Parts: sequence; C-alpha cells; structure tokens
Amino acid sequence: MKTNIKRIGIMTGGGDCPGLNPVIRAVTKTAISQYGWEVIGIRNGYKGLYENDWVKLDGDSISGLLHKGGTMLYSSNKDNLFHYLVEENGEMVYKDVSDVGVENLKKLDIDVMFIIGGDGTLTSARDFARKGVKVIAIPKTIDNDLASTDTTFGFNTAVGVATEALDRLHTTAMSHHRIMVLEVMGRYAGWIALHAGIAGGADAILLPEIPYDIHKVAEKIEERKKQGKNFSVIVVGEGAKPIDGEVVVREVIADSPDPIRLGGIGLKVAHDLEKICGNEARATILGHLQRGGSPSSSDRILSTRYGVAAVKLAVEGKFGNMVTLRGDTMSYDSLENVIGRKSKNVNPNGELVEMAKAIGIAFGD
Amino acid sequence: MKTNIKRIGIMTGGGDCPGLNPVIRAVTKTAISQYGWEVIGIRNGYKGLYENDWVKLDGDSISGLLHKGGTMLYSSNKDNLFHYLVEENGEMVYKDVSDVGVENLKKLDIDVMFIIGGDGTLTSARDFARKGVKVIAIPKTIDNDLASTDTTFGFNTAVGVATEALDRLHTTAMSHHRIMVLEVMGRYAGWIALHAGIAGGADAILLPEIPYDIHKVAEKIEERKKQGKNFSVIVVGEGAKPIDGEVVVREVIADSPDPIRLGGIGLKVAHDLEKICGNEARATILGHLQRGGSPSSSDRILSTRYGVAAVKLAVEGKFGNMVTLRGDTMSYDSLENVIGRKSKNVNPNGELVEMAKAIGIAFGD
Amino acid sequence: MKTNIKRIGIMTGGGDCPGLNPVIRAVTKTAISQYGWEVIGIRNGYKGLYENDWVKLDGDSISGLLHKGGTMLYSSNKDNLFHYLVEENGEMVYKDVSDVGVENLKKLDIDVMFIIGGDGTLTSARDFARKGVKVIAIPKTIDNDLASTDTTFGFNTAVGVATEALDRLHTTAMSHHRIMVLEVMGRYAGWIALHAGIAGGADAILLPEIPYDIHKVAEKIEERKKQGKNFSVIVVGEGAKPIDGEVVVREVIADSPDPIRLGGIGLKVAHDLEKICGNEARATILGHLQRGGSPSSSDRILSTRYGVAAVKLAVEGKFGNMVTLRGDTMSYDSLENVIGRKSKNVNPNGELVEMAKAIGIAFGD
Amino acid sequence: MKTNIKRIGIMTGGGDCPGLNPVIRAVTKTAISQYGWEVIGIRNGYKGLYENDWVKLDGDSISGLLHKGGTMLYSSNKDNLFHYLVEENGEMVYKDVSDVGVENLKKLDIDVMFIIGGDGTLTSARDFARKGVKVIAIPKTIDNDLASTDTTFGFNTAVGVATEALDRLHTTAMSHHRIMVLEVMGRYAGWIALHAGIAGGADAILLPEIPYDIHKVAEKIEERKKQGKNFSVIVVGEGAKPIDGEVVVREVIADSPDPIRLGGIGLKVAHDLEKICGNEARATILGHLQRGGSPSSSDRILSTRYGVAAVKLAVEGKFGNMVTLRGDTMSYDSLENVIGRKSKNVNPNGELVEMAKAIGIAFGD
Repeated sequence: MKTNIKRIGIMTGGGDCPGLNPVIRAVTKTAISQYGWEVIGIRNGYKGLYENDWVKLDGDSISGLLHKGGTMLYSSNKDNLFHYLVEENGEMVYKDVSDVGVENLKKLDIDVMFIIGGDGTLTSARDFARKGVKVIAIPKTIDNDLASTDTTFGFNTAVGVATEALDRLHTTAMSHHRIMVLEVMGRYAGWIALHAGIAGGADAILLPEIPYDIHKVAEKIEERKKQGKNFSVIVVGEGAKPIDGEVVVREVIADSPDPIRLGGIGLKVAHDLEKICGNEARATILGHLQRGGSPSSSDRILSTRYGVAAVKLAVEGKFGNMVTLRGDTMSYDSLENVIGRKSKNVNPNGELVEMAKAIGIAFGD
Repeated sequence: MKTNIKRIGIMTGGGDCPGLNPVIRAVTKTAISQYGWEVIGIRNGYKGLYENDWVKLDGDSISGLLHKGGTMLYSSNKDNLFHYLVEENGEMVYKDVSDVGVENLKKLDIDVMFIIGGDGTLTSARDFARKGVKVIAIPKTIDNDLASTDTTFGFNTAVGVATEALDRLHTTAMSHHRIMVLEVMGRYAGWIALHAGIAGGADAILLPEIPYDIHKVAEKIEERKKQGKNFSVIVVGEGAKPIDGEVVVREVIADSPDPIRLGGIGLKVAHDLEKICGNEARATILGHLQRGGSPSSSDRILSTRYGVAAVKLAVEGKFGNMVTLRGDTMSYDSLENVIGRKSKNVNPNGELVEMAKAIGIAFGD
Repeated sequence: MKTNIKRIGIMTGGGDCPGLNPVIRAVTKTAISQYGWEVIGIRNGYKGLYENDWVKLDGDSISGLLHKGGTMLYSSNKDNLFHYLVEENGEMVYKDVSDVGVENLKKLDIDVMFIIGGDGTLTSARDFARKGVKVIAIPKTIDNDLASTDTTFGFNTAVGVATEALDRLHTTAMSHHRIMVLEVMGRYAGWIALHAGIAGGADAILLPEIPYDIHKVAEKIEERKKQGKNFSVIVVGEGAKPIDGEVVVREVIADSPDPIRLGGIGLKVAHDLEKICGNEARATILGHLQRGGSPSSSDRILSTRYGVAAVKLAVEGKFGNMVTLRGDTMSYDSLENVIGRKSKNVNPNGELVEMAKAIGIAFGD
Repeated sequence: MKTNIKRIGIMTGGGDCPGLNPVIRAVTKTAISQYGWEVIGIRNGYKGLYENDWVKLDGDSISGLLHKGGTMLYSSNKDNLFHYLVEENGEMVYKDVSDVGVENLKKLDIDVMFIIGGDGTLTSARDFARKGVKVIAIPKTIDNDLASTDTTFGFNTAVGVATEALDRLHTTAMSHHRIMVLEVMGRYAGWIALHAGIAGGADAILLPEIPYDIHKVAEKIEERKKQGKNFSVIVVGEGAKPIDGEVVVREVIADSPDPIRLGGIGLKVAHDLEKICGNEARATILGHLQRGGSPSSSDRILSTRYGVAAVKLAVEGKFGNMVTLRGDTMSYDSLENVIGRKSKNVNPNGELVEMAKAIGIAFGD
C-alpha cells in the first residue's frame, strides 16, 4: 500500500511495563514489511528527543523482542520538554524546549511520531500534536485505569505476578496461622488489587476506591477463625485508605540524614490487624516485580494489536489520535479528548466488586 | 436474601478444562454464604446422576480449589442419559434413562441443577430442562468456540501453555536451523492456534478455518532464510486442512492388532516442509498439557464470575438459561437458543488474522 | 519387614519451607505401606505436643501433598517446651514443661517421634532424646547453612524464586538506567544471595560473610557504564554488612506508637549507591515469597529422600540421629554432634566465590 | 594473570541443551576480563570449523545470554570431520577432512579450542587433540548419563519441565479416572524419567535399565483403585523395554510414501494398560519441550561453573582434558579416558530406585 510516509519515529516514556517491546516490534514489523517505511527509535523518551539520541530499527534489532520485558528504547520517567530543566548562565532553570524536539524530528525527516506512554508522556504528545507534529499515541498504564480504552497491556502480567505471589503467601499463612498482607501497585485505581485478590483467593481486598474500616477487615478474619481457618490473606492496593484519615509512613535510615520513603499502607494494615486479631501478621511489598519481566500471552497479543492498529491509523492519516480498545475492537480517540479525562476507577457497586463480595471477600466497607 | 430454593445440585461434564474447580467453588461459596442453600455435588457427570453418586459440598470441601486444575466432581466424556448404554436381558442396549435422572434429583430434593459442560453436556441439560428440571447452565469449552458467549474459561490457560511451548521450541529451532511445528487443540476452531501463534511469535499459523497451501508456507520459510533467519516455528491447529484434500494419518503399533490413532496434521506439516525446504523439521503435539494444570489468573477470575452469575440467575428464577459473557458484562441466553447454534469460528478476514498478517505471519492462503 | 514399632509421630517446627509437605508424605507413605505403622501428626510443633493436638495421617490425608508449599501439620516458630510460657497463679512465667510432652507421647502410644525443623526445633529434639524419647530428626533450613548436611530442601526453590525476581528486575534496570537491588534471605549465611546472584546475572553480590565497601560496589557500576551498560543489578543477603559498622534501619509508622521493623540493608545499599553513582536506585525485599509456594522438582526429590531415609533410620533403631545428605548419599549424624556445631558459611575464598569473581561479579571486598 | 594464550575458539555440537549459552558466556567473560584473550565463536559445530564460519565474541555479543535456551553459536547434530560427506568428482563421498579443520584453526590464530558437546562431538575433540590441537572439552548431555562427571547441565531443566507436565496430567487423570502416560527423553539411561517420576508423583516409572512386565504395572493401578484412587500417572523413558521383546512402532502417513517414525513406547504402554485395566489411557510425548527454553537456576550456575573451570584448565595448560564435576568440586579427566567409557545408568538396586519403591512407585519388575 502506498502512503506519503517514508520514515517514522517511535519512543517510549514513563515507567516500564510488560508489552512495550512487543509494541515496538509490531510497529516496526508492520511499517517495514507492509509499507516499506524506515523506522527510527528515539531513545530515553523525550530526553532522547531533546538530545537527538536515536537508533535505526530493522528486522534484526527487533528480533526476539516479543517475550522481553522492559523497553529496548529505554525510557525516562519525568522529562517534559515543555518544562525542562536546562542550564542557563550556569544555573539550572525550567524552560520550554519543545521547539528543539520539533527541530530534531525535522532533521531526522520523521514524518510520523509514534509515542507510547502514560498520562504525562501523552500530555506532551498532545502538546507536540498542537505544534504540528504528526503524532500517533499508544496508551501505557500497568494500572489499567485509562477511561478511553478498555484494557491496557501490562495489566494482565502484573495481575499474574501478584496472583502467583498470593499463591505463595497462602501456604505460609496457613502453616503459621498468620495474616499475610500483599501490597500491590495502584495508587489511584485498585484494578490490580481487585483482580489479583479474586484470582489469588484473598479474604479481603483494600482499594483506593473503597475507604476501609480496619475493624470490618478484622471481623472477616474472626469469622474465618470460627470456621476453623485460622489464617487470612489480604491484598492492599498501594493507594488504599483507612476511613479515619491518611496514613503517613516514614522509614528512616538511622545513620543517614536522608530518610528513605517506602510504600507503607501494607505495613500499616499488617500492623493494625496483628494488634486487633492477635495473629502474627506480615507484609510483603511486591513493588517492581510487577513491572518487569516477560509479558503474559494476553499482553503479548494485546500490545501487538495496539502496535499494528497504530500503524493503520497513520496510514489513514488519523494523526493526533490515540489507539484504543473498545470491547474487542481496536479503535481510536483524539488526544485532545483523552488528556484530562477522569481516570477509570473500580466501581464500588460494580459487578466485579459485587461478585467478590458474593464469594465472601471483604472490602472493609 | 430469601428464595424458595433450599438445595442445589452441581455437576461437570465433558473434557476437563482449567476453571472447572473455581466454578464449583464460586457456586458453592455464594450459595452457602449468601443464601444458605445446601449444595450437592453430582459426581462423574450424567453417569453419576444415573447412579445417584453424589457428595455434599461445604466450605471445607471447596477449600484450596481456586488454583487446582481438573474437576473435583470428576467428569464423564460421553454419557447421555437420553441415549444410555444399559444392560437389559443380558444384552447392552441404548435406552432413554433420563427419567431415572429426574427421579434421583427429586429424591435428593434438589431444587435447581447447575450443569457445567460443553455442547454434548448442555444438549442434555436442555433436554432435562424440557422435562421440567430447573437447570442453570455454564458453558465450558477450552476451544473458545461458543457463539453465545464472548470468552470461556480455560482458553486463556491453554493459550498460555502453548505460548510457553513455543518459547521453548524457538530456541531449538534457532540453534539447529530447524522448522519446529507445534500442534495445538482446535478441531473445528483455530482460536488457540491463532492466539498462541501471535503470542509465541510463530512464522506461520495453520487453522481449520483457512485451508492452507503448503507451498505458501514454504515460501514464508524461504523468505526468512533470505533475511538470514534459517529457522521457523509453525503452529498448527489440530483441525487444519491442506487445500488439496483431507489428511489421513494412521499410527500402527506393529505388534498389536489394534492401531492407535494419534493427532496427525502436525506430523504431516513437518514432514512436507522438510521435503520442500530442506531444513530438518520436527513436530511436537501438545495434547493434554493444554487441558490440565492450574488455571491462569484470568481464567480464575472468569470462571468465578460465571459461577456467581449462575447463582444470581437461579435467584432470579431464570431457569433453562446459560450464563454468558457479553463484552465485559455477565448475561445469559436460553438453552433453547444456545444449542444448535453455529460455533464461533476464526474470521479469515477479521482483525486478528489481518493483524497477524501485518506483522508477517503466514496462513498458507 | 518386621519392627517393634507400631505407631510413629511426626511434627514440623520453625519457619515454613518448601519440602515440608513432601517429607510428611514420604514418611507416612513409607511407614504405612512398607511397615504397616500407624502415623500420628502432631500439629503446631511443640505447642501441639504440649496441648495434645494431633491428627491421624493416612493415604487420604497426604494425597496431593507433594507439590504443596507450607506444612499441613502447621508449625510454631518459637515454642520450646523446656522454656515455655505458661500461666501460673494468674501470672505468665517460663517453665520447663517437657514432661508434659513426654507424657503425651506415651498416652498416644507413639514409639518413635519424627521431628522436622531447624536449629531451635532440633535442639529441643535432642533434649527430648536425652529424656528417653526415640527421636529421628530431619533438618530444615531454607538458608542451606547446616554444617552436618550438604544440602537442605527448600533452598533450591528459594534460589529459583530469587532468580526469577532478578530476571524481572533486569528488564526494569535496563529500561530506566537504574540500579536495582534485591534483598534476599540469609541473616548469617549468604548461600541464597550467592546462588541467586550467579543464576540471575547480578553485577554485585553482598553477603554476611564478606563485609562490603560500598565504594567498591560503586566502582563496578561505574566500570559497567564505561562499557555502555548504564544499569546494574545487585543482590544483597539480609545479613550483609558494610565494612564501616552496623546498619541500623528503623521504620516508623508515624501515627502509631509501635514502630514496625523491616529488613533494611537492601534499602541502605540502594540509597548509598544512588548517592554515589547518580543513577536512580530501587530496592525490592523478596521476603516471604522465598518461603512459600510449590517446591521445585529438586526439592521434591530431596525432601522425599530425607523422609524415606528417616524411616529407614527408625527401622534400624538408630534413634537420636538426624538424617543427612553427604555427597549423593543419604546418611545420618547424632543430634548430640549436630546441635551447637558451627553453621556452614560461604567461603570467601571458595570455588563459587572465585568463579563468580572470574565472570566479573563484585563482592565489595 | 599472564598466559601464552592470545586467542581462543569455542564451539557447540550435538543436540541443544539448556545451559549452552551460559557456558559460552562464562568462557567468554572469564577469557576477556581475567586474561585479555580474544574469543572466536565457531558456528554450527564442526561444519563451521570446516567451512570457516565464525564470529568474534565480546561483551556485547554475550549480553543477555544467561537465561536463554539453545546456543547462539548454533549446532550441527552429526557432522564429523574425520568422516565427512563431501563432493568429489561430482559424487558425494565420506572423507577425512579433519586437516581442513586444523588448518582453519591455525589461520584464525586460535591457541586453544573449547569444545562443548556430547559423545560424538567429544570423540572428534579427542581426535583433534591427538592431531595436536589444544582442546578443552566441556560435556553436554541432557540425559545426565556421563560416567566421568556427576551432573551435567540441562538435566535439571529437563526434569523441571517433565515435572510440570506431570502436575498438569495429574489433574486430567483424576478428573477422568484415566491412566495418563508421559514419555520423556532417555534412550539409554532413565535418569529424567526417574527424577521426574519421583518429583511429579508418578505411580509407575518405566526405565531402559529395568525391563518391565506390563502386568506388574497394571497390578499397581488395580491396587490404587482398591484404595479409591481410580486414576494413575505413568512416566516412561523413551528407551523403556517390555520384558517380552522389543517394541516396534510404526506411524504411517497414509497419503505419503514416506512413513514418519515417532517415539512409540509411551503409546504402547497406554494402549496396553487401557486393555488390561479398562480405564481410558492417554499418552503424551514431551519431546523437544524438554530441550528448549530458559535454563533453571541450578543449570545456570552449573553451566557457568563448567565454563569458568574450562578457562582455568586452559590457563594451567591442561589440554586434552574434559571438565568434570566430582561431588561439589570442579575437576577434569583426560578425553582419552572419557571417550568410550560406559555410560552412567540408573542402578536398579540403588538408593533412588529403592527410595521410590519405598513410597510405592512401581517399576514393573
């Protein structure tokens, strides 16, 4: 098929997420084999765009990418060329250097820029689109909390890792009559906690969307004891909140002037339940183990679909859009619409929570 | 909540499938904890219904079921009480003994019967419903080829197992410049082959829905050689068909009068490609490894949703229906509609096949 | 074979460890099928011995145990009947209540007691042996630091879990140019860190046995940068020590009067390396994920061997001994010898450390 | 450290095996970082030596190899330069072309040649050593049947894959009251079958070393039925033999003049047991799934040890030797001794078989 496009760019921004490499592979494979485009990988996200750091992608460079975690193009977490820290007259100041990015794209003869990232990355993508860059956006959020699309890649893998962790913690909980708490990702949306909790047979699931009363969680634990099950497993999304105010957790390295902060709600839940119920309680913070590693088969397929659909959007000239999944159909939405839209949260009265309650899972409400 | 139901029965029929145990668990948990019903497990499918072989289910009996493959209630593959082999006057004859089943349900005071199974099992479920039994049906097919529902449990696990197998075969293919063929399940529908093929990075996928020309597959292999990749991995659904007629594969144990039949299309594909391309080719038949073992996190959630939705249907008095998943919503359809409906097949021109072709996967068409 | 034994007891003590269930299964299977003994499982370790809490074990109760983590007999972590907290005149006091244990064994007609546990559990086992109880001991330590035996079950599984975690962290480290630190178990012996570090391709391994200079670790990281590898993965055993003194890590939950303590050396290493090298650094504490879950194939075999060898010892009347593995041969040693023996530590000049250094792994020395 | 060596070669021969890539990585890393040698990878085994097909190895080329299956240097299965098929006067004839190999090594200035392979590959290695080539050999056999060394890499991974397959088959066997047969590798030695059978909870294990009476296997199955366990799982090494003569299995593709041969003893065992016991029986042939894929943590460590020890041998000038593992110590033995030595077989009266029998596993003897 003929298009006016000769050369495209692709970059990844934000935290890593299983599926990024398969997206890069799918875009590159389709672009080269179907349309004969050249593909330029911009490295390190917007930082690389500013510094003109890139690599040419071909069949060899994407070989074996499908099952690899992370992103071969590297990523940067916070860099925003519209508000970028640069040196000026010996001082570090924030400036809008987005024109440098636009210039670099021109110098590289990049006709269309494929940008894969989360909220921050895509806000900049929109801003570049406003400046005339032909942008195709691909959403990335392991939390699956984007309202504009039904499912994002990485989420299924994260749920799988958390579920396996729960399987492991179950045997320890039972052997020692303990309360085992697993803290999973999800600062604002509790999807990982909810899905992993159901899949991993948790007795309680605490979510950002449902403020919890620790005494109601304790009731569930006591109810289980009456049934002869003197152990419990609790999943806590990192943004979970007790009904009685914020949690502040500080971790201090005593021999250091700089305290290290560490996710803390899981610790607090374990701590509080041990006090109330009397069982030993232990917290495990899953952390980065959810983000890294080989994508699940579902995520490999989903991310490949996003990549191929992105190329199709470009072929159709639908720039300034983000690829979406609606039901089982690949679709798209304008970046102008997508950015700023409220995130997709767990519905406390939705089917999944109701279902979880039907099989006896407590939410502390 | 109050219902007129006091006691329910549950049984599983047909081939085993990851997710059966979580369904049993979800139905039992919900029935007992939400409604105070008693739960009777009928063992060995319809055979157990005929022989009055049952076990009472409670919190203890379903403990630890969530991550277990198979079915704790056992299954029978072919038994049909409407056409059942019984002894009569010293001879084995087929008879309609369904009244015995109805009688046994009455004797057991079972108000509603939950039947989990595939086509054959659910056809009988419909026939029992016609005889006045209050039936709630739950679909089970690892092939994911049921038109009435979007996704069935077990499928995701099977795809995961096949994908992992492809990951393994890839390293051997590359090390030895070989063509490695993996035969997966799917006699009539190629969903497992299609999904696993995309997730596992296959170079060609052969499906029942797309008759293949082996020379077109060979072309793909030769094209890869020109790119310096002297190896290929092929996924074959067991029902794949060459354009030039049926495959008949016979396996004969020489010292036995009874030949054993064994899936054969994978062998034929390997055989033919070795001849045409010159590379060594090897076939692996994944077989039962796809059916057994612990369900994936997705399948644990999906099967739990089916189970809870089934109980809800019973509470609402919607008997004679099968639980379905439509988009992301649990729904239902009448068994009268469901049975006999054409199965859901891979669309040779659908998005998934088109997408696979875009990244260079050959289908032999 | 005929023995004077009619009935045996079995119990597990200390932290859970993959392989405990297979040991219970092997002892029970062998005892029943080979010798016709009855088998009594004492629950909750010594606590259950004191409280006379037991269950009869037979073919059914051990069915499916081989691949299960944890211990079906439960465990207690710290209970010592020779120094046991009991109420006396309304006050809690420590007393020697071991006679109660001896009495309970007599009442249960237990001829031989099989005790599976770590240092603390086996010290009591020795003391019971001194009181005339016929004890057969089986060692359990996930840290693999027992001098009297070459390998203990659970260790291989823990190393596998830690290695998989490292595989995951690698992709994140690379994508974000980060230093990823994984803290694994091993308060006194660094075997898990050493093995997982080699298997997981770590760039540095910090062990209790080799006090580390953080600047030498940083040198390794800088050396990698010069080779174009702007990321590193570090494994830290929880007992690792900096050359310049103890680490004290305090974690304080701000709104609680009771601080929670949490393993901290991993945090400190990440913290210090971030400061020195400039790369973002993140710590993951693997914690309980190493202890729970299904044993690896190696650990299933090893624990089964321990169990069968234990029964053989009893048949031969070799009471007061612990089963050991020497080379590839099951053997035994007297509990009197075993208890108090110095633990088996990583040799800083041994083959494994030398080998790790040969492929460029830093130890901070 | 100073040596006279400046440049080494490395190659892999024979069937692929998890651990080959880690060996290549360990040799290369040690050679470069410890001694400053150059490293040349000969591709495709001896074929590449003849055709002068090589690649230079450095830090980049071995990056990420540790967890990869297969061999990055490719392998050839049967090529023997001392008896090599070449064209001469338009005809294909077998000739001794080993001098070409020696010449090519000289041209490449290779001082020491590291050869990794099985029996066939190492026989040639010995013959090259006799011709004056400085050879260091590293053994490779997934079957673990080499008498000169205690354990070879790849074996642990294969046992793990087979064990996982058994875990899957168990759930199907139980659900359907079936006899599930798993055929694993091991034409001459039954180590994989024995280890996987113990780890996977098999009810019978059939090995090349213990000719089996199918009626004794059937007895075990009937004994289980009496205990209420109407299913069984059997592991069969591919070289297992019935006491009453050879098995001949033919598989014929009906529409092809060329019959395909397929491993057959597993089919025969299933077939025979179905007839005798009446249960449905099914066979799964694990095949190539045992050879490919990521090495286990144990195999990653073991293969790294082999690689580093090989370099050490070269440094010490001990050419013509093969690296071995003796107990837990890396050692070596002369290729002259190693080649032709009887293979290491399962001892029918050894501890492992005795132990398996103690827990009730049948061997058909």
